[in-house]
Amino acid sequence: MAHYGFIGIGIMGGAMAANLLAAGHELTVYNRDASKCAPLVASGASQVSTPLEVVAAAQITFCMVSDPDAALAVCFSPHGVIQAVGPGKSYVDMTTIDPVTAEKIAISVQARGGQYLEAPVSGSLPQARAGELVIMAAGDEALWQAVQPAFAVMGKKSVYLGEVGRAAAMKLALNMIMGTMTAALGEGLALLEKCAIDKGEFIEVLAAGALASPLFSAKGAAIAAGDFSVKFPLEHQQKDLRLALQLGDSHHQPLPVAASANEQYKRALAAGLGREDMCAVAKVK
Amino acid sequence: MAHYGFIGIGIMGGAMAANLLAAGHELTVYNRDASKCAPLVASGASQVSTPLEVVAAAQITFCMVSDPDAALAVCFSPHGVIQAVGPGKSYVDMTTIDPVTAEKIAISVQARGGQYLEAPVSGSLPQARAGELVIMAAGDEALWQAVQPAFAVMGKKSVYLGEVGRAAAMKLALNMIMGTMTAALGEGLALLEKCAIDKGEFIEVLAAGALASPLFSAKGAAIAAGDFSVKFPLEHQQKDLRLALQLGDSHHQPLPVAASANEQYKRALAAGLGREDMCAVAKVK
Amino acid sequence: MAHYGFIGIGIMGGAMAANLLAAGHELTVYNRDASKCAPLVASGASQVSTPLEVVAAAQITFCMVSDPDAALAVCFSPHGVIQAVGPGKSYVDMTTIDPVTAEKIAISVQARGGQYLEAPVSGSLPQARAGELVIMAAGDEALWQAVQPAFAVMGKKSVYLGEVGRAAAMKLALNMIMGTMTAALGEGLALLEKCAIDKGEFIEVLAAGALASPLFSAKGAAIAAGDFSVKFPLEHQQKDLRLALQLGDSHHQPLPVAASANEQYKRALAAGLGREDMCAVAKVK
Amino acid sequence: MAHYGFIGIGIMGGAMAANLLAAGHELTVYNRDASKCAPLVASGASQVSTPLEVVAAAQITFCMVSDPDAALAVCFSPHGVIQAVGPGKSYVDMTTIDPVTAEKIAISVQARGGQYLEAPVSGSLPQARAGELVIMAAGDEALWQAVQPAFAVMGKKSVYLGEVGRAAAMKLALNMIMGTMTAALGEGLALLEKCAIDKGEFIEVLAAGALASPLFSAKGAAIAAGDFSVKFPLEHQQKDLRLALQLGDSHHQPLPVAASANEQYKRALAAGLGREDMCAVAKVK
Repeated sequence: MAHYGFIGIGIMGGAMAANLLAAGHELTVYNRDASKCAPLVASGASQVSTPLEVVAAAQITFCMVSDPDAALAVCFSPHGVIQAVGPGKSYVDMTTIDPVTAEKIAISVQARGGQYLEAPVSGSLPQARAGELVIMAAGDEALWQAVQPAFAVMGKKSVYLGEVGRAAAMKLALNMIMGTMTAALGEGLALLEKCAIDKGEFIEVLAAGALASPLFSAKGAAIAAGDFSVKFPLEHQQKDLRLALQLGDSHHQPLPVAASANEQYKRALAAGLGREDMCAVAKVK
Repeated sequence: MAHYGFIGIGIMGGAMAANLLAAGHELTVYNRDASKCAPLVASGASQVSTPLEVVAAAQITFCMVSDPDAALAVCFSPHGVIQAVGPGKSYVDMTTIDPVTAEKIAISVQARGGQYLEAPVSGSLPQARAGELVIMAAGDEALWQAVQPAFAVMGKKSVYLGEVGRAAAMKLALNMIMGTMTAALGEGLALLEKCAIDKGEFIEVLAAGALASPLFSAKGAAIAAGDFSVKFPLEHQQKDLRLALQLGDSHHQPLPVAASANEQYKRALAAGLGREDMCAVAKVK
Repeated sequence: MAHYGFIGIGIMGGAMAANLLAAGHELTVYNRDASKCAPLVASGASQVSTPLEVVAAAQITFCMVSDPDAALAVCFSPHGVIQAVGPGKSYVDMTTIDPVTAEKIAISVQARGGQYLEAPVSGSLPQARAGELVIMAAGDEALWQAVQPAFAVMGKKSVYLGEVGRAAAMKLALNMIMGTMTAALGEGLALLEKCAIDKGEFIEVLAAGALASPLFSAKGAAIAAGDFSVKFPLEHQQKDLRLALQLGDSHHQPLPVAASANEQYKRALAAGLGREDMCAVAKVK
Repeated sequence: MAHYGFIGIGIMGGAMAANLLAAGHELTVYNRDASKCAPLVASGASQVSTPLEVVAAAQITFCMVSDPDAALAVCFSPHGVIQAVGPGKSYVDMTTIDPVTAEKIAISVQARGGQYLEAPVSGSLPQARAGELVIMAAGDEALWQAVQPAFAVMGKKSVYLGEVGRAAAMKLALNMIMGTMTAALGEGLALLEKCAIDKGEFIEVLAAGALASPLFSAKGAAIAAGDFSVKFPLEHQQKDLRLALQLGDSHHQPLPVAASANEQYKRALAAGLGREDMCAVAKVK
């Protein structure tokens, strides 16, 4: 069993860290809001008060925070990750970030002699809890090999994609498609409501055909039930669409359908729905 | 066993009619291009040379043609369906049409004393062959009951939605979402291509997560392989998006994401891809 | 001086007919809501109770109604234009219609031996009153020559474009651009409002630069003043966008920016703003 | 007469600096590609080899470079503006930048005791040459007063908008509308081409009506003539749309029409048209 560090004990990170702990690994944890670490500490984790101390304590440190700005803060703040990485100290960032941010962190980690792996995931809370995430990794290949025991606990599948930035890009493409699909589902349901057709029957038909997906099953049922309790916050979905569009912009890749979907999520944000589940985009009229 | 009529022996209609025949039903068939009926005739179907004669021969006639204009032509041409319907003669239109067209046909059938059911399907050639279509029906409820033996042969599920026009609307909503999803998949793959990421690995990750769907499996593999041989013609997908947008227009329902997707399909049409599979939308750069 | 007929005494038609009368022409008028004709009758016009009677009375009849459906009704109703046109009877439709509708009317008029000219206009009430419309004409060239005296009274400029349908198409392209521009102005003002910048100063800067236009001067001032009293109804602007998009669709011409603008107008319709001025699109948040 | 500094002797900056010189002001200039300064030096300007030296030489320094990155480089490079500003040294950035960049520069200038004014302009080369730019200013009000003699030479109108960032925002809104208008013009012309209608006649009709603007006159003629020689590079127009959309994003302001226009410019970039004039967006099919 290994000694891992874990930075970012939020909804996702908390579940992932709990699985590492349950599998028998030693764990040192840090979270900005320290109180969130209590359940892990109760289960045997050590808690420290800066990212620096996490890296100092463990050979391999995972990070799972909310967005690129948070990922940068964790690394570059005065008591940040960069202050402690170095030979024999590896850093695995599982946050959904853009390739430019990934590159910045990678360069700084490597400049200090550390190893860097970006490893964003597909899946939300239920998959995190069940250890069934899909992990997209890019960066140091030896590190990728080394973290297989941890990935096996947190996910059901992991792929190695090569150069830093590629896992970030794949994750953004995935969430871009997810955002467009959910907006499309919302449009379909809104159209049917205007035609006086029952949402439930449509969702049943949808589930029986080629468009059936776990996403549509979950979000269709939630929208039909008017249950917008948060699984993946709408404001994060919009952020990922924005990052994907910026990536497209930097590559001169037109993405007109995703751009339209992004505007729908912005409309939802303007309506104050940012902290509801992403499927609240269906409430935009 | 019943005696059914079947108008429209194209890709879909041919497979559906073959299943009715295989199940032991007597069948009278008509197709504009008469040569397409040969396999069915070889299996025991009777072929006639006008829609009128089909309705005259059978108590219940199914129709599966390409679009609203074809559906109208079949009904209202000089030797069309309307000339023969009447008491004891029922007409089941399984074509993907818009609610306004459905209403026109329904009124004329009913005015002659016949029964009308609209029954568009979800599924394409493989589902039609396997008898696993999902059938959305609206119109005459007694007729819906009466055709259950035929629907059981052609589909794996059928729902009854009430007033004429509702099945048409649900089918359009379904195809609208399908068109948006496929365009979104194309955008994701185009973005990853610009990032030098392997399409195959992305499709594998997609298949392992919440976005997994039979549509993405089939279309993802086809796009990755550069195989745009036609399952559902791109020009039909664009037509369905257009009809869905017109329906939205008549209800003042904004559908900005579908509208963007529609423009991508139009771009594909302008590039001469209308007769390729709908997933050729991914070739639009 | 000639004897003209005028069908459609609405906001635009009323002003145009008044100018013909003021110029000394004899005028026979019809309007569905007969009371609207009173001021013209007071000024010397003869009023009749069907389109047929207008055409019967005058050698050249102008028509200015609200949309393609109204233009078709005026022609093809039991006492419609088509019942009276024939050799020596000419029909000039100035309504904003689509090329398909124009073609239908042209064929019927010509089949009866009459002459047809489509002649949609650029300009709204102030231009109609001032006789400063821009008239786009297509169809019978001899008729175009013959109506020059009338066009000179109603407009400041007219162009002849050839085959039937081309004037309709040009008018739709013009209104498509107008709709997009006004939606763009609304977006700019909404963005500046979020930045706490005074609308009035922006409109002043806009008026001093390359983007300055009579449209922006009028609509900018109206939006800044919150004055959405109707000059050109929003629902008509949306209709014209829809017709332009349908024209694009039939030619496989992608029009993604206009398609997005159309969705904004639909959103405004859904918010109940259809009878306000088109610039109420700026109220869509 | 004053002694001014001028950083950025490109297409726009060169014309603006020439006007200052012609009006009798003393001028110290710097450009990254030093050779561009030759004509100004021939007319009496002093040339130095770093931004620092410009600020050191003059009391008030203007800057006109291509984009936010260039504006930041000019300020924060080792021999940049910030190294020399201080009490009695003022800096006026006329580059089109975003409010966040403006804020960064303002804070650094003020922290050194200098005065900052952002002053982006409306107008392109002809207006710059003629001294007829429209100048939007925000930041230090006393500095705004102090530069009136220079603004009077470079522009025909200037407005003061208050807090730093507001002029940047107004300029972005202006260019966002310009980008949408030009894309809309391109769509209109493309539609008419499909309808076999002469571009020239359309542009004439456009010029006679409410949509007439200097932009449409210039760009319409250029598109009709197939002359895409650069006045305002397409890649800069796309950059400004991107910055405007980012501004909208940060304020949760949906801008769906501008977002669609942006995708058209990206498509043009992907087709290699970035260095042509912005109206080359009309070549996107």
